[in-house]
Amino acid sequence: MTRFVQSEMHPQRWGDPARAAALPESARGLVELAFGLDERPAVDEAPLPASGLDAGPLERLRGVLGAQHVLTDDTTRRLRTRGKSTPDLLRARAGDLADAPDVVVRPGGHDDVAAVLAWAVEHRVAVVPFGGGTSVTGGLVARREGYAGLVSLDLVRMKRLVAVDPVSMTATLEPGLRGPEAESLLAEQGLTLGHFPQSFEYATIGGFAATRSSGQSSAGYGRFDALVMGLRVATPRGEWVLGSSPANAAGPDLRQLVLGSEGAFGVITEVTVRVRRLPAVKVYESWRWPSFDAGADAMRTLAQAGMLPTVIRLSDENETAINLARPDAIGGPESGGCLMITGYEGEPAAVEAKRVAVTAVLEGLGGVALGTDPGDAWAHGRFDAPYLRDSMLDVGVLVETTETATWWSNRARLYADVKAALAASLGDDAMVLCHVSHVYETGCSLYFTVAVKADADALPQWAAAKAAASDAMVAAGATITHHHAVGTDHKPWLTHEIGELGGSVLRAVKADLDPTGVLNPGVLIP
Amino acid sequence: MTRFVQSEMHPQRWGDPARAAALPESARGLVELAFGLDERPAVDEAPLPASGLDAGPLERLRGVLGAQHVLTDDTTRRLRTRGKSTPDLLRARAGDLADAPDVVVRPGGHDDVAAVLAWAVEHRVAVVPFGGGTSVTGGLVARREGYAGLVSLDLVRMKRLVAVDPVSMTATLEPGLRGPEAESLLAEQGLTLGHFPQSFEYATIGGFAATRSSGQSSAGYGRFDALVMGLRVATPRGEWVLGSSPANAAGPDLRQLVLGSEGAFGVITEVTVRVRRLPAVKVYESWRWPSFDAGADAMRTLAQAGMLPTVIRLSDENETAINLARPDAIGGPESGGCLMITGYEGEPAAVEAKRVAVTAVLEGLGGVALGTDPGDAWAHGRFDAPYLRDSMLDVGVLVETTETATWWSNRARLYADVKAALAASLGDDAMVLCHVSHVYETGCSLYFTVAVKADADALPQWAAAKAAASDAMVAAGATITHHHAVGTDHKPWLTHEIGELGGSVLRAVKADLDPTGVLNPGVLIP
Repeated sequence: MTRFVQSEMHPQRWGDPARAAALPESARGLVELAFGLDERPAVDEAPLPASGLDAGPLERLRGVLGAQHVLTDDTTRRLRTRGKSTPDLLRARAGDLADAPDVVVRPGGHDDVAAVLAWAVEHRVAVVPFGGGTSVTGGLVARREGYAGLVSLDLVRMKRLVAVDPVSMTATLEPGLRGPEAESLLAEQGLTLGHFPQSFEYATIGGFAATRSSGQSSAGYGRFDALVMGLRVATPRGEWVLGSSPANAAGPDLRQLVLGSEGAFGVITEVTVRVRRLPAVKVYESWRWPSFDAGADAMRTLAQAGMLPTVIRLSDENETAINLARPDAIGGPESGGCLMITGYEGEPAAVEAKRVAVTAVLEGLGGVALGTDPGDAWAHGRFDAPYLRDSMLDVGVLVETTETATWWSNRARLYADVKAALAASLGDDAMVLCHVSHVYETGCSLYFTVAVKADADALPQWAAAKAAASDAMVAAGATITHHHAVGTDHKPWLTHEIGELGGSVLRAVKADLDPTGVLNPGVLIP
Repeated sequence: MTRFVQSEMHPQRWGDPARAAALPESARGLVELAFGLDERPAVDEAPLPASGLDAGPLERLRGVLGAQHVLTDDTTRRLRTRGKSTPDLLRARAGDLADAPDVVVRPGGHDDVAAVLAWAVEHRVAVVPFGGGTSVTGGLVARREGYAGLVSLDLVRMKRLVAVDPVSMTATLEPGLRGPEAESLLAEQGLTLGHFPQSFEYATIGGFAATRSSGQSSAGYGRFDALVMGLRVATPRGEWVLGSSPANAAGPDLRQLVLGSEGAFGVITEVTVRVRRLPAVKVYESWRWPSFDAGADAMRTLAQAGMLPTVIRLSDENETAINLARPDAIGGPESGGCLMITGYEGEPAAVEAKRVAVTAVLEGLGGVALGTDPGDAWAHGRFDAPYLRDSMLDVGVLVETTETATWWSNRARLYADVKAALAASLGDDAMVLCHVSHVYETGCSLYFTVAVKADADALPQWAAAKAAASDAMVAAGATITHHHAVGTDHKPWLTHEIGELGGSVLRAVKADLDPTGVLNPGVLIP
């Protein structure tokens, strides 16, 4: 789980180029059956627009950071172009690199970041903080109009474990640490952050904080925003340090204003997080439920009884069927229904006590225990889905996801409405899958995956479906995103969620902290 | 616990005038021994300043709300003058009613509140939202300079249980509901909020939200800010509704900007909270620890193991000794050390399982079980301390509290520093007591109580001690308040905690939502 991935991601695909693979032969047959095969190789060497930054400001930037940390070569710029949404990938595969930054800078610490911001304000250059580059909501596609250029502020050199407080069980981390790097440094001290989103292998600490990430073990370890105890932020107006205590009543909790700010208010340069002891035991089990409703009700029962496992997720009938049909197929002759994964991590006695208690509840509610095989298969492949998306794009199948969250009483309606909206937009041949993977006492997330034969130009195809799904979410009173941030893709719907006054407040805070508007322009703020 | 107190509080004392009492004879002896007795009757009928609001605006206000909801009589104005900090009480007892509002208005709902705000903006009148009137940080002492008058916006008519969602386990409450009123309405449906601060009998839902209150059962039910799922706010710029989902990544969590805003950004007109099933069983036990450090370490162990009871509190040696010396004395011949209360609430099986597990941990750490008597005594008297404060003031003894929170690794230093600061300021004869009553994985609160012979003018005496304690808190990097808000009393220290930029952001949000600055001027915002 904490395997290191040292490489850069492929500019047109997810993840480690060495792990990218063609669709396995066995899966190819299924895909051909469902969608037909339509090989679509990506354009290999797309030309980059010339770096547009004037020589004077560029030279001064080199003076600020050192020339070796100011990069304008095509390879570096290409690797810092956009994120990894399917639209981002489609554009990259089509050779569209119009959003490439003019220059990539690599600050070595907080003071370097502050110096870059001062330089950017002086020269009116847009600054896009870059962590893992894993945004799937257009969070790295800043507006360029009105700026003298665009700088990608690459946090790749800021990877220190700054401090560990083993008494308070906190750790202070720099923002450029990827998930596995942070876990590895903490593991040396017997600790874990316990934050494992699907982007874990590439995404960074700073990004987790800036986007309010939520990991696959959120039921046990908490959302990332719940883990954050303190923040250090570089803003155009200076340093901002927050976090006097676990909780307090000293006015509004301003940490919660920085969390989710997506680089628009400042650059997070240190994050102090709650940590836990490395679990001695990890057990992943699985259950079958007769329906998505029955499984979701069981999740609700556990959440409201304060009995959640470390991991809990539930696939709907469609997603369960796809899982069971996969080459590394799981489930036995009695397959069907809805698959639930339950994972327990911790000390052996606590794990066993929780497992026994949860098992009794789930059996009482009609769940059928499937043993550990499907759970282990899920745990083994939990970071692999984005690779499959590329392999599918290679054969002309558009795969994309969109997700939301709501109250338990609204779950069934939201599920039906978003599913119907996606199906109506993408057509009868589209597969629409869904799972619940983040559970609270009062509600849960819903994460939709679609697969459909890609149009010749798949961008408007997905844009229409995304808009239909998003309209359905806000019409149902649900959030536009449970754990993927606003970026540019969700911005049109944000005001529905936070109100005109919410947008106004975000603009007021932005104007206060970033009066010249150099930070990630066009992202987040309505 | 859910006894109703229908009465208004006494304008010069805490709570129900019928429950106010002279110091019991048995306690009188102890107090005389410690401080001497110095009877100090309050001035009974202090004159009020004339209502300063012009007849024109007043008449228009009557038109807005109806004359019966616009009150200018002395009795009503006196009852809405300031809060219940010891300085507030000292001023009231001395006959100083300079902070009396010009008029008290009683809106019947959100639209009424909005109408009052529009009127206030038009006539430049300051508006102080008034819930239970229990502020102990000067939160009801707004600045009057520059305003045509000051209105107390009394939420006493807004006491509806607006909605209950038994599936999602949420309830929507109006802000004027006192603690017992909210609990009573919820109990009719088998539900509880589980929020029991010492001010419970008078404090209101709106106040809990506006001040980030934390109750005595916070370990089990959570702080009030953690209970809040949604908010409806009336601002001078219009209605603001927040809360799309239990949690999300749709930008910063703006709910956390309203929570703790102390009426400076808007008036909270509805609060949607997470609720729980009424506990079938409540068990309060107690433990003796050889030292405050040993007891605090045991609390930390429980918190970091995820094994906290519903209630957990620990008195230091001084507070333990005072408790044991009280007329309703607790503890046996082996008294001494430090008293810990552990409380368990819930279903019988879950309570028993938790109790057994916690007992094993505490015994393993050297705690001595004292049985249920001291715990029951604490539970019985948990809302009575403020009455005792008045009885002590009657005999010339100043009793006041101040509280903070920090990380576990900083607890011992913070405790020593604040205690030393209070002792140095108040003199060797002062009693300084402390307890821990709110516990987190990463840290805890520290709540100090002082008792000292009051100077002829006790206001500067306490102001100096409060300043010394507050300086010690910020010097130790701790919060200026764990659960009593900023008000006016903590404002000088807020910038130490949230930084100059934090103050700037609060001003920017204030300017955006309340551009004419009519809301609770002088409170919270640095």
